[in-house]
Amino acid sequence: MSKIQDGSMSVDGAIDKMKYLPFKDLGHTKVDNHRELRQGYPEVIYCQGKTTEQIVNIVDSMIGRGQNVLGTRAAKETFEAVARNHPEARYHELSRTLTIKHKEYSSPATYISIVSAGTSDIPVADEAAVTAEFYDNKVERFYDIGVAGIHRIQEHIEKIGGARVIIVVAGMEGALPSVIGGLVDKPLTAVPTSVGYGAAFSGITALFGMLTSCASGLSVVNIDNGFGAGYLASMINKL
Amino acid sequence: MSKIQDGSMSVDGAIDKMKYLPFKDLGHTKVDNHRELRQGYPEVIYCQGKTTEQIVNIVDSMIGRGQNVLGTRAAKETFEAVARNHPEARYHELSRTLTIKHKEYSSPATYISIVSAGTSDIPVADEAAVTAEFYDNKVERFYDIGVAGIHRIQEHIEKIGGARVIIVVAGMEGALPSVIGGLVDKPLTAVPTSVGYGAAFSGITALFGMLTSCASGLSVVNIDNGFGAGYLASMINKL
Amino acid sequence: MSKIQDGSMSVDGAIDKMKYLPFKDLGHTKVDNHRELRQGYPEVIYCQGKTTEQIVNIVDSMIGRGQNVLGTRAAKETFEAVARNHPEARYHELSRTLTIKHKEYSSPATYISIVSAGTSDIPVADEAAVTAEFYDNKVERFYDIGVAGIHRIQEHIEKIGGARVIIVVAGMEGALPSVIGGLVDKPLTAVPTSVGYGAAFSGITALFGMLTSCASGLSVVNIDNGFGAGYLASMINKL
Amino acid sequence: MSKIQDGSMSVDGAIDKMKYLPFKDLGHTKVDNHRELRQGYPEVIYCQGKTTEQIVNIVDSMIGRGQNVLGTRAAKETFEAVARNHPEARYHELSRTLTIKHKEYSSPATYISIVSAGTSDIPVADEAAVTAEFYDNKVERFYDIGVAGIHRIQEHIEKIGGARVIIVVAGMEGALPSVIGGLVDKPLTAVPTSVGYGAAFSGITALFGMLTSCASGLSVVNIDNGFGAGYLASMINKL
Amino acid sequence: MSKIQDGSMSVDGAIDKMKYLPFKDLGHTKVDNHRELRQGYPEVIYCQGKTTEQIVNIVDSMIGRGQNVLGTRAAKETFEAVARNHPEARYHELSRTLTIKHKEYSSPATYISIVSAGTSDIPVADEAAVTAEFYDNKVERFYDIGVAGIHRIQEHIEKIGGARVIIVVAGMEGALPSVIGGLVDKPLTAVPTSVGYGAAFSGITALFGMLTSCASGLSVVNIDNGFGAGYLASMINKL
Amino acid sequence: MSKIQDGSMSVDGAIDKMKYLPFKDLGHTKVDNHRELRQGYPEVIYCQGKTTEQIVNIVDSMIGRGQNVLGTRAAKETFEAVARNHPEARYHELSRTLTIKHKEYSSPATYISIVSAGTSDIPVADEAAVTAEFYDNKVERFYDIGVAGIHRIQEHIEKIGGARVIIVVAGMEGALPSVIGGLVDKPLTAVPTSVGYGAAFSGITALFGMLTSCASGLSVVNIDNGFGAGYLASMINKL
Amino acid sequence: MSKIQDGSMSVDGAIDKMKYLPFKDLGHTKVDNHRELRQGYPEVIYCQGKTTEQIVNIVDSMIGRGQNVLGTRAAKETFEAVARNHPEARYHELSRTLTIKHKEYSSPATYISIVSAGTSDIPVADEAAVTAEFYDNKVERFYDIGVAGIHRIQEHIEKIGGARVIIVVAGMEGALPSVIGGLVDKPLTAVPTSVGYGAAFSGITALFGMLTSCASGLSVVNIDNGFGAGYLASMINKL
Amino acid sequence: MSKIQDGSMSVDGAIDKMKYLPFKDLGHTKVDNHRELRQGYPEVIYCQGKTTEQIVNIVDSMIGRGQNVLGTRAAKETFEAVARNHPEARYHELSRTLTIKHKEYSSPATYISIVSAGTSDIPVADEAAVTAEFYDNKVERFYDIGVAGIHRIQEHIEKIGGARVIIVVAGMEGALPSVIGGLVDKPLTAVPTSVGYGAAFSGITALFGMLTSCASGLSVVNIDNGFGAGYLASMINKL
Repeated sequence: MSKIQDGSMSVDGAIDKMKYLPFKDLGHTKVDNHRELRQGYPEVIYCQGKTTEQIVNIVDSMIGRGQNVLGTRAAKETFEAVARNHPEARYHELSRTLTIKHKEYSSPATYISIVSAGTSDIPVADEAAVTAEFYDNKVERFYDIGVAGIHRIQEHIEKIGGARVIIVVAGMEGALPSVIGGLVDKPLTAVPTSVGYGAAFSGITALFGMLTSCASGLSVVNIDNGFGAGYLASMINKL
Repeated sequence: MSKIQDGSMSVDGAIDKMKYLPFKDLGHTKVDNHRELRQGYPEVIYCQGKTTEQIVNIVDSMIGRGQNVLGTRAAKETFEAVARNHPEARYHELSRTLTIKHKEYSSPATYISIVSAGTSDIPVADEAAVTAEFYDNKVERFYDIGVAGIHRIQEHIEKIGGARVIIVVAGMEGALPSVIGGLVDKPLTAVPTSVGYGAAFSGITALFGMLTSCASGLSVVNIDNGFGAGYLASMINKL
Repeated sequence: MSKIQDGSMSVDGAIDKMKYLPFKDLGHTKVDNHRELRQGYPEVIYCQGKTTEQIVNIVDSMIGRGQNVLGTRAAKETFEAVARNHPEARYHELSRTLTIKHKEYSSPATYISIVSAGTSDIPVADEAAVTAEFYDNKVERFYDIGVAGIHRIQEHIEKIGGARVIIVVAGMEGALPSVIGGLVDKPLTAVPTSVGYGAAFSGITALFGMLTSCASGLSVVNIDNGFGAGYLASMINKL
Repeated sequence: MSKIQDGSMSVDGAIDKMKYLPFKDLGHTKVDNHRELRQGYPEVIYCQGKTTEQIVNIVDSMIGRGQNVLGTRAAKETFEAVARNHPEARYHELSRTLTIKHKEYSSPATYISIVSAGTSDIPVADEAAVTAEFYDNKVERFYDIGVAGIHRIQEHIEKIGGARVIIVVAGMEGALPSVIGGLVDKPLTAVPTSVGYGAAFSGITALFGMLTSCASGLSVVNIDNGFGAGYLASMINKL
Repeated sequence: MSKIQDGSMSVDGAIDKMKYLPFKDLGHTKVDNHRELRQGYPEVIYCQGKTTEQIVNIVDSMIGRGQNVLGTRAAKETFEAVARNHPEARYHELSRTLTIKHKEYSSPATYISIVSAGTSDIPVADEAAVTAEFYDNKVERFYDIGVAGIHRIQEHIEKIGGARVIIVVAGMEGALPSVIGGLVDKPLTAVPTSVGYGAAFSGITALFGMLTSCASGLSVVNIDNGFGAGYLASMINKL
Repeated sequence: MSKIQDGSMSVDGAIDKMKYLPFKDLGHTKVDNHRELRQGYPEVIYCQGKTTEQIVNIVDSMIGRGQNVLGTRAAKETFEAVARNHPEARYHELSRTLTIKHKEYSSPATYISIVSAGTSDIPVADEAAVTAEFYDNKVERFYDIGVAGIHRIQEHIEKIGGARVIIVVAGMEGALPSVIGGLVDKPLTAVPTSVGYGAAFSGITALFGMLTSCASGLSVVNIDNGFGAGYLASMINKL
Repeated sequence: MSKIQDGSMSVDGAIDKMKYLPFKDLGHTKVDNHRELRQGYPEVIYCQGKTTEQIVNIVDSMIGRGQNVLGTRAAKETFEAVARNHPEARYHELSRTLTIKHKEYSSPATYISIVSAGTSDIPVADEAAVTAEFYDNKVERFYDIGVAGIHRIQEHIEKIGGARVIIVVAGMEGALPSVIGGLVDKPLTAVPTSVGYGAAFSGITALFGMLTSCASGLSVVNIDNGFGAGYLASMINKL
Repeated sequence: MSKIQDGSMSVDGAIDKMKYLPFKDLGHTKVDNHRELRQGYPEVIYCQGKTTEQIVNIVDSMIGRGQNVLGTRAAKETFEAVARNHPEARYHELSRTLTIKHKEYSSPATYISIVSAGTSDIPVADEAAVTAEFYDNKVERFYDIGVAGIHRIQEHIEKIGGARVIIVVAGMEGALPSVIGGLVDKPLTAVPTSVGYGAAFSGITALFGMLTSCASGLSVVNIDNGFGAGYLASMINKL
């Protein structure tokens, strides 16, 4: 059975290298979970930087143990390779996420609102949405709500604020969480994205803007970390 | 009646300046709430950068409207001036916070764990604690839990993890939230502090470390923002 | 007659040093104008870093030449010293600005809107306002308009947008210009302020946020540069 | 009909994905306008990061509604695909901009001067010029005016200063706006470019230099934001 | 005989250029040692940025002088070219390192522990391990020890701490050295890696986190510098 | 008995506050050790940010338990207060360190070389020296060895290199460790200092310079962290 | 006749675009000189970002006016295209520079020393050398002089210091200028290079290190700016 | 005889501490020269961070050896203490420099031009001027030459350019060296100053702007380093 390789190596070298790896059997302890989470939902694979073969091996091993699978930042071809063994796999193209569900999680009656500012923020927003849905949360998406078009915020604010917890995704100056946060009184997780150019500094400006927001009940996750926001929102929604 | 002044001006000049301020009556709209929060709990004053006279005026006005009062970053002498009119005021020396409570909030059965790493992080941790208690949450404090003394973490981890939501406060490298977050499965709000020197960069290293933490269910607020963490935790605890 | 000194020297040493200064007579070429502006309105003194004696000398020289005088970042005591020779001088306490007007400028029928977010942004906003008024523009002030209180924006937006040019002043995440800019179609000058702590980075976060704003017709001046915004707005208002 | 896709996806996957997009019909609300501007001139497409197919769809939809079209940062092949349906489309090679004009805007008698420093700054300068011309402003281009060749500035300064509003584009140390700004008394919009190497830091040095310029009447837009400067100048020129 | 070329040139041009190089004979002084080390173990080649031909020439020259060879950051094809002349060469795929050993070094009885956090940190950790083994140190690898899975740390801590010196490799927030350093009392060299995204800033966050660690006996080397850590640990292990 | 206070509070308030501290008895667990070290030598107090009263209490408690005491960054008056109870206390003026020794540690025959570049680096260098001597290491000081005076390096290099481990302290460009490291083959701990102005950036330039040094066997501690270097060197010297 | 194009365009589009360029005839004013230098030696072309066709046109025009030509950062194929028209052209492979000389400059009897630290710094060092030689200065190259091998510095220091002016090129920590500068008393121009990884930050660490050097008579040019150093050294050498 | 102390210590402690200092006699080797210069003109004291007593001791020792003395960043009271022993000492108030001259240096016929932009840059410009004059160079000062007043540059450019070497001092955006450098063909040393606010970043913006200047023959020294520029200019002027 294959083992975990460094993504920068060729597929050909992978089998050989396995002999020297000081790891235990993959089926047992070394599935590389998304951001190493081990404490709660161990079914997540962060696909970026792994070869298709590695991911296929990890998925096979997880399914073999009866786990559900959530793969983030997965290329289309990765999904297709996984789907050959597991035709029940689904691909979520907007966020480049793959999911395989065999068992259900608890499903609260409340919902999570996910708001994003611009078209380019949608991949991150949808990674949050797919993550939250994977854990059987109800999700409401609001993907065309920009700060510069405040009438669209007001049109939807009642529905946005009706959620138990809100995720707001924005790049560039990252002002949307401040505006939404000033209109609702629910926990709000802000996700800066690397969208923008020049003084956007690949998401740093949005990140700092969100951290200094004057709205209350707002906290922030890493740039482009849609998974982290979806996971946290699911955790809060199920409390 | 007095109005809001810029903190850098003398108390003597304050009355005069009031004539030119384009503000409405203080009792009506211009109480300067902590980080401008207007949507939920409007009883918070961010005292830093305001004169004692200004704060006394704001408190009088709030009490006159029947509000509770939470003043953060308040000097001892500010408290003493406030307490002359309102002997029921309390001062929380660790966090330099003042509170006046006339009415109760909803009080959930669950509690909030507040963990901090070093002695110098306590003022921020206690600002979070006093904020959460002001809104009638039960709080458990764990103030001597450092990453370098992992046996202490384990001694307390069951009690820490028994909370509905956890706040972890740390300066320097800010590693404590990662460690706690790997051991519990509750929403965790990380608060970086400006404690440290050299490469600590006044809290930036802790901030970035927390944002890139591999623990799940973790989000971050601004450097030294104990109030923000306490407020968010209260919001989640009362869902 | 006295000359320009380095502000870090004592007033006592100033006279002596003058002998060695390779400058021409103060009355002729060396009035140190605000940010060295020489091309248009040469009546501005940036007072910070100059001694009271220096400023008094410069003002005397300017008045002697029949000029109006605008002094920014002037301490109260500086004003009082100036007012002893020139009782017609006025002090604007909010922005710490002093003005002496003998002659009028052109006064357009249109007005300039100046919007600011929080109490701590008022000194910068009012520096812009006093500057614009010094050049005989009509100014409308909107000083209690925060992003987190969007209903206040809407209440005033028609009046704000009725101006020929708009100045928006904000610290922390600096989101207000994006929101205002999305609701009006007038040239908008954004002024970041150094208000905030932690990830506000003394105005840098606000500055970068404003530069990456998705609102159109928006440009930015330096952190805390109320004078620059007021001067530019006056220039546009008089076109 | 097709919808907006994430630019990182293949053209093949675009049609499929459309089924899951929670957007309204493209012809109605989701044309992705340049920097989300919605308040004034809604005819702008920021082409970078969109597939040719997406842009063709958006253009078709806009023309169908009778709008003019301005597409910035458009590749030659994008233009060619658009021109197959709309032979009246024009391509501006210097700035990689495409335009389709069916209706005229107001055309003021005054003109806009656009000055740039080096050969490499021309694409940004011409994006500003084409934008201003799209909105039917007269534009004068001065594209070979460097700080190190001050005689060229003086040769042209009268014509430059005769404009109603001036745009100055410069990379590297970004000193040109300071020099021009010291010689004219018109509103001046400075555009830093990402031209340069080493300590130019992709435009940051030029950006900061322009923000701290001692010239008055000067404001700044984001790095390489020729469109923003052209749009603002048009707005001022038409006041 | 060939000489050192700039890696950005074609192999074809290399011979010609040699005529103009002011270098002495390669076999004598110009073998480009890893980070220019000249004082102790001169057998190291930093392969990145050198052509295969250059590396083959350097290896031939070193072997001709009877030296051992350690080549770091070597591509597979580089190794294969070297192995054609030197079939005793070994390739270490995890760290992309090549070694040729003819003579032994002193071999202490004590061992070096090398701990790493995530799968993506393994290449750097193994560069340290192969370096230490090249100098005939015993090495114990602990490659699946994450901060978020503290039970795995405890399971192995006795063995980790039994070493004479410890290397800890971590990316993202870089918290692992703090945790390990709090449990052992041996010299600990921390190696930040460029693993992570967003606020990980290509290893800078891990670097600063390690520098501000509250654990004692800890020092830090450059980002991704596995060789440096392995070399230092070997030096300490042999004292 | 007194407890730990926040250093920003008055001595008067210290006793009162103690009642509310959720700490265990100071004599038992809450002595605030230097950078929280708990694993080896628990006798260190980081005095900066603590009141004299706090330090006196901590020292009394430590002496009561029979511990030695090392207090770093201690003001002269702190020492004097401590010395009233413990006349055997010594003050090390160069590094502002206080020590009380009752029991001896192991004392190896080898010595530690401590080299520093400029006069202003001496306080940090001597903190390292006093720390190493506190743990009964022999120390050789070389305090006037600058990069710009390379003849002085050569005069002393044999003695410097005769140590078992070397500490090099430098500010400004921090080049000294590279030069020393190129001449010796011993483990070298580099300590950047915050000495310098302008592009020295309070020690960051020295820190980065040391991390990128091409000398082998070199590692780095935090800016101004003389204690950390001395502690690590002691650890290595006693292996 | 052809004109200057933006380098990002295809060669095919170049002729067409020319029609719209608001430039004067190339033979007259628009030869794009290296870093826009216009005041002294106008024969320099910065080739990076220009197409081969553009460079050929510029060279033809310059030769037509009887000028010498120095082309920096020129690809081999660019040189070959130039050499078809001008067989007297020479290519300097180490620095990727092309030169055509028809007329001589003044040639002082003194020489310029050019010292570099590592193999990867040679391209920058040789750009300086070729530039100085182009202007008919005598140059002595010292290309294998590293800080970590101080004996090599001493072996050559007399010859290095015999120059009228010295250029020192170094990447990584950039310490070499400090060491050389401490041994000679001649004007020294330091050139940081972008060589290094991690905390080298693409030359920024070397740049800052050189700026804070404690050696006197030292000044600094931009990262990788070998031309600038060679030009300045030539200027000083000819005084 | 007294020795070198750390400037943060009291004068009272200085004598005692001397016993433990591992220094040789002050009269012999330990005069702390300005930026450690030892190779050429050893008569410079960087006074900042030294006590008056220390400086008096150093001056006495230098005069005893027959040296001239140049003390930079010297407070007035330091000068007065020095002048009690050495009435021939002179104080240069603009730059806060003290000089004692007993012997002459070579005095070339050519002169050095020193140009500065604003009033606040004068202290740095005059430190350069006094340094150059100390070494018996002729100096021409041009202290009121701003980029925004280009007519003043032209009025003086012939005289400025007549120098053998030029120093240009500027803060804020630091554009003046680019402009001067484009008009003259002499070696130009640019000195950024820490003058400015907001995006001036204490001289960093000026520093980067100067490094990326498109003018040739220009190099840069550290922020506020007037001494370094004056020393280098003297060196070049005397070649």
